[in-house]
Amino acid sequence: MKNSLGKEIPESIEGLGKLIPYTGAWGLQDRLDEVKLVPVPAKARKPHYDKTCANLEEAIKKSQPFNGMCVSFHHHLRGGDQLIIQAMEIFKKLGIKDICIASSSLTTAHDCLVPFVLDGTITKIFSSGIRGELGRTVSEGALPNPIVIHSHGGRARAIKEGRIKIDIAILAAAAADNEGNATGQHGPSAFGSMGYGMIDAQYAKNTIIVTDNMVEFPCVPASVPAHYVDFVTEIETIGDAKKIAGGTTRITKAPLDLKIAKMAADAIIATDYFKNGISFQVGAGGASLAVAKYIRKAMIEKEVQGSFLLGGVTSVCTDMLEEGLFKSIFDVQGFDAAVSSSLLNNPKHIEISSDQYASPMNSGAMTNKIDVVALGALEVDTDFNVNVITSSTGDIMGASGGHSDTAAGANLSIVVAPSFRGRLPIIVDKVMTVVTPGESVDLVVTERGICVNPLRKDLEKQLKEAGLWVRDIKELAKEVEEIVGKPAHVATTDKIIGVVEYRDGSIIDVIRQPKK
Amino acid sequence: MKNSLGKEIPESIEGLGKLIPYTGAWGLQDRLDEVKLVPVPAKARKPHYDKTCANLEEAIKKSQPFNGMCVSFHHHLRGGDQLIIQAMEIFKKLGIKDICIASSSLTTAHDCLVPFVLDGTITKIFSSGIRGELGRTVSEGALPNPIVIHSHGGRARAIKEGRIKIDIAILAAAAADNEGNATGQHGPSAFGSMGYGMIDAQYAKNTIIVTDNMVEFPCVPASVPAHYVDFVTEIETIGDAKKIAGGTTRITKAPLDLKIAKMAADAIIATDYFKNGISFQVGAGGASLAVAKYIRKAMIEKEVQGSFLLGGVTSVCTDMLEEGLFKSIFDVQGFDAAVSSSLLNNPKHIEISSDQYASPMNSGAMTNKIDVVALGALEVDTDFNVNVITSSTGDIMGASGGHSDTAAGANLSIVVAPSFRGRLPIIVDKVMTVVTPGESVDLVVTERGICVNPLRKDLEKQLKEAGLWVRDIKELAKEVEEIVGKPAHVATTDKIIGVVEYRDGSIIDVIRQPKK
Repeated sequence: MKNSLGKEIPESIEGLGKLIPYTGAWGLQDRLDEVKLVPVPAKARKPHYDKTCANLEEAIKKSQPFNGMCVSFHHHLRGGDQLIIQAMEIFKKLGIKDICIASSSLTTAHDCLVPFVLDGTITKIFSSGIRGELGRTVSEGALPNPIVIHSHGGRARAIKEGRIKIDIAILAAAAADNEGNATGQHGPSAFGSMGYGMIDAQYAKNTIIVTDNMVEFPCVPASVPAHYVDFVTEIETIGDAKKIAGGTTRITKAPLDLKIAKMAADAIIATDYFKNGISFQVGAGGASLAVAKYIRKAMIEKEVQGSFLLGGVTSVCTDMLEEGLFKSIFDVQGFDAAVSSSLLNNPKHIEISSDQYASPMNSGAMTNKIDVVALGALEVDTDFNVNVITSSTGDIMGASGGHSDTAAGANLSIVVAPSFRGRLPIIVDKVMTVVTPGESVDLVVTERGICVNPLRKDLEKQLKEAGLWVRDIKELAKEVEEIVGKPAHVATTDKIIGVVEYRDGSIIDVIRQPKK
Repeated sequence: MKNSLGKEIPESIEGLGKLIPYTGAWGLQDRLDEVKLVPVPAKARKPHYDKTCANLEEAIKKSQPFNGMCVSFHHHLRGGDQLIIQAMEIFKKLGIKDICIASSSLTTAHDCLVPFVLDGTITKIFSSGIRGELGRTVSEGALPNPIVIHSHGGRARAIKEGRIKIDIAILAAAAADNEGNATGQHGPSAFGSMGYGMIDAQYAKNTIIVTDNMVEFPCVPASVPAHYVDFVTEIETIGDAKKIAGGTTRITKAPLDLKIAKMAADAIIATDYFKNGISFQVGAGGASLAVAKYIRKAMIEKEVQGSFLLGGVTSVCTDMLEEGLFKSIFDVQGFDAAVSSSLLNNPKHIEISSDQYASPMNSGAMTNKIDVVALGALEVDTDFNVNVITSSTGDIMGASGGHSDTAAGANLSIVVAPSFRGRLPIIVDKVMTVVTPGESVDLVVTERGICVNPLRKDLEKQLKEAGLWVRDIKELAKEVEEIVGKPAHVATTDKIIGVVEYRDGSIIDVIRQPKK
């Protein structure tokens, strides 16, 4: 069957079941009556039972692991995570196989999981993203089931829908007490918001809090509160928080990226959305994080005071809060360990769950309320569809993150990207994989001009009136092709190695194995 | 059928369905596999939709009211509540009938609901308690369905189990923003913790936040966060917070009550639980609140530092936090509007939901962790069963509250009560209605000595070693009978006017209509 973007989607996939084809950015509204959510598990613990375990192995054993189960993690430590590998080694030692890993994302820190994929310990993955050796291994078809790529909000929905049915949640905490009250906000490995782990703790059959910093009861704040937690254990280290910032979460110094960021800021300033009360998010990677720097400058100059920042929080965000440029920050994850102290100390810097951040399945996530978002891209096509997941070689080598969530919700969603990188075109006729549908992307800002989605004539007018360089995206794609040549077609086999789940649970695209 | 206390329970009741007989304080553990929880409702709101309504009527209309629906409220404003009546007047105006009211409790402020019961607007009630004219009306059999009395923790469980299936939650907030972030912690009608409304907001098909104090977005803290909220409206007043303290939440000055409170404190001090790290709760009413005063004094004298206070929070609690006698307070409700500022400003004064406070259906509520609780009673029998719901005339005239929740969880649960009041015996052979089972009551402290549950030989030893006045409860009951005479038997009809649901959902007792 074909989804509304014309993508061929199988009716079902073994191990995943029946697939729902994508029907539009807000297609969920039309089929809400058919949606079945699952309850949280029924638990009833006796009073005064001791949740503490001598080590992670004991906590895992008490959680009754079994072959074929689903284990969840959060990725707040990003490149510094050291918990998943410790857990997998224990599962392997216990002889548990056929595990489904449901991590809010996976990074280059998870190359160490490759042997567990190759030997059948891990056979299924749900993640927002995947990179490095692990990405290559999955792209080579090493998993018996396709990886399911979800957005951050989509993951919260998938857990509520029981599509991700967590048997054991193993959640890193920078501080925790003996009852399981846990936070990422303080401690030697402080990573900030614990937003991605909150929903896991609620819905997992067994929730284990793992910390390298046991504190006296009660651990405050309780980002994950004790009544969701079954077991608590202390280990030597949950990871290296210094490695949170780096890669896609570090603000670029590349002149081209900065130029594009400046152009994006100018575009934002030219719209009606740049006014008192503006709310704003920047995504990870390349030029997008840098947009905040220019917006900050403009807000000071033009004496504009914003309402809230959302994210994905860097020190640029916390600086703007301190300066009074924005009145609050809603923080689902820290892009830098240093923002933890702001989260801990400033009541207007508010920790939120992924459900509250971006899920389409509630009474209104923060992404539903945002004015402006600036996002990155690996490819953008002339229908404004965005690929943030597959590389030029067809490998799965990126992350969906909050991309489609914020794009769907924002009044003004901007994709910032160079028109080409080296010999690789970024603006193309057809993206290889759609993660974010064009209908929810308003502007594409490149160093060769700004393309406005034809659905947004209002924006086109405002940008032209401001004298900005507005271009037709088809012309730009053609110009790029003239410069770098027609991109080599990535040949693929028929084997589906990845499924891109849109935030609402429908399938927006599938990823086939690249021929090598 | 008979439950394990020998109480005759019907197999089912029209309008309530099949009943589960009580099997023991922790009977839930044995039937956990049979428990079916319900999911939260599937909602998917479009971005940037306006939740604000011009008035409560508009918000109610948008929530699609219908005959036979269930409407929930919290009772944080206690005697000062003015929201329920405003909502009911609108329902009546709209011609909605056969409404089930699910309020976390009902107080003398709700006498105004009597006409709505008499005219069939309200036909079913779930509540922790009921008093005054409304209690008398229900006791006279005016409701077509028996009132279901639940504990605070049991209510959270009942909502998760779908026994209370909320169509519209109408929740008073002392401050809220246009997205529905809401709190009781600040504003002219500040009432403190919003703990009883949190689970309603999550599980209701439609959640309406009603405030008399709309603040700029974002309202911080968001005791109820926006993504659970469908509509927001501002009204003239949600009630009179000055009336929160009063009646059962005011600390007694009666010499007899103070004497008993002092004896209870002495008993606590004599046990092994009185040491560094002690955790403590006092219940509403009579002598129990006063126990905290004496405990405070002893802690200072003996240099004991506690871990946490739980409750039901009075200024005595916040004073002890300030003094460093306890390290934290977990607050599900304020017994005095004045404690709001402590909750707002002291990070160790922590707001918790009723689920986290006392539900048996999670990984460990705070009541599971508490050492000592001091509770009141209307009657206690020689099996240590406690009645806190029916009066000497057989009318429903009290509240279950957290009584059975804390009694079940505490290491040391103490009931404090005079052995008789006027000509009414309190210590009796058989209580008229069991709310808290004797197996979870350790001590009964009266002005005529302390009775120790035979299950707790350890306590008996400790109290005797301290030279305290330990007595057999049967002897005490006999002595009381000799003083005040045999209590008049309350004759009842066969009609069941109330069902007392134990915290785990089983039926611990039923209340039959008193003959008048």
